Amino acid sequence: MPAPIDFYFDFSSPYGYLAATRIEDVAAKYGRWVNWQPILLGSVFKITGGQPLPSLPLKGDYAKRDMARCARLLGIPFAYPGKFPISGVAPSRAVTWLQSRDQQKAKELALALYRAFFVDDRDISNPDVTIEVATEQGHERAAVTAGINDQAVKDTLRKEVEASIAKGVFGSPYFVIDGEPFWGHDRIDQVEQWLAKGGW
Amino acid sequence: MPAPIDFYFDFSSPYGYLAATRIEDVAAKYGRWVNWQPILLGSVFKITGGQPLPSLPLKGDYAKRDMARCARLLGIPFAYPGKFPISGVAPSRAVTWLQSRDQQKAKELALALYRAFFVDDRDISNPDVTIEVATEQGHERAAVTAGINDQAVKDTLRKEVEASIAKGVFGSPYFVIDGEPFWGHDRIDQVEQWLAKGGW
Repeated sequence: MPAPIDFYFDFSSPYGYLAATRIEDVAAKYGRWVNWQPILLGSVFKITGGQPLPSLPLKGDYAKRDMARCARLLGIPFAYPGKFPISGVAPSRAVTWLQSRDQQKAKELALALYRAFFVDDRDISNPDVTIEVATEQGHERAAVTAGINDQAVKDTLRKEVEASIAKGVFGSPYFVIDGEPFWGHDRIDQVEQWLAKGGW
Repeated sequence: MPAPIDFYFDFSSPYGYLAATRIEDVAAKYGRWVNWQPILLGSVFKITGGQPLPSLPLKGDYAKRDMARCARLLGIPFAYPGKFPISGVAPSRAVTWLQSRDQQKAKELALALYRAFFVDDRDISNPDVTIEVATEQGHERAAVTAGINDQAVKDTLRKEVEASIAKGVFGSPYFVIDGEPFWGHDRIDQVEQWLAKGGW
């Protein structure tokens, strides 16, 4: 059985959203499982000195145009959120909580949270909104609320983010396949080449 | 006659080199002329706060791997230079000088300078090396030497770099086609889509 694809994403990352929408189809084509790992770019940027795209002179304006254009060319719904960037802590905790119970449902929740933010302009950094989205996915409100407030879940997410950075993850989306790293939704064509050939 | 493609590049940019190697073929396919405009990322970074890739934690190591991988997948010769990054002032002045005399030869010189740096590990930031490469391209040593030391050439380049930044150019390679900006050699597929459809 081939090794899984590690997929790292931040909930405030538009390119992470585009990749999240596409990666399962690509992986399924080559019989690979995908591990979805939420990361927090705020923690990453403390190490790398990086900054959120919108705050960067010139590049920020370009990125705003580019993300909408990429989504349009891929046929993926996208609307630039009213509040951006946001903290991905609440949605990441919800996904981390659910991953210990049901991996598949955790992926579906991650996609639903991404769509809530990047399609419906709902502020998922607000825990109440994240909980609302989870209930719409069929999860018990009380269970989700307890989950994202559970200290063990918080600790797990923190440790996973630290472990990701220790592995060299510095952006979103970021993929590792058979030890080979790929950064950016615009490397999905190379990801596909790698999967097709089993390396190169 | 369709509008030309503006192509901005820094001589220390590996992705600029990859794009320089590919853009003329893409443009020719759709009957477009390409304006080659050397820029100096050092001047850009003063405005944007950007930094050379190799100096960035995590991202620098990844970039080193990614640029070699992209070149390999494209079948373009590439060797990580011993000294990197470098200043692109000398080669940019040589190209600026030649552009006022022969646009086509200026493009050929730009490609020769890029190959000298990214294939043969020659330090083109040294004016003597830039002059040597130009003589290998059939240009008179005395003329090239006078050209890159000409105050008018220096002023032209400085003004063109300032004008590029004023237009929003913040990285290399950067393309503007019919007013639409594209950043990165990994946007050449979108450049090609744009050219094929004449917009979208």
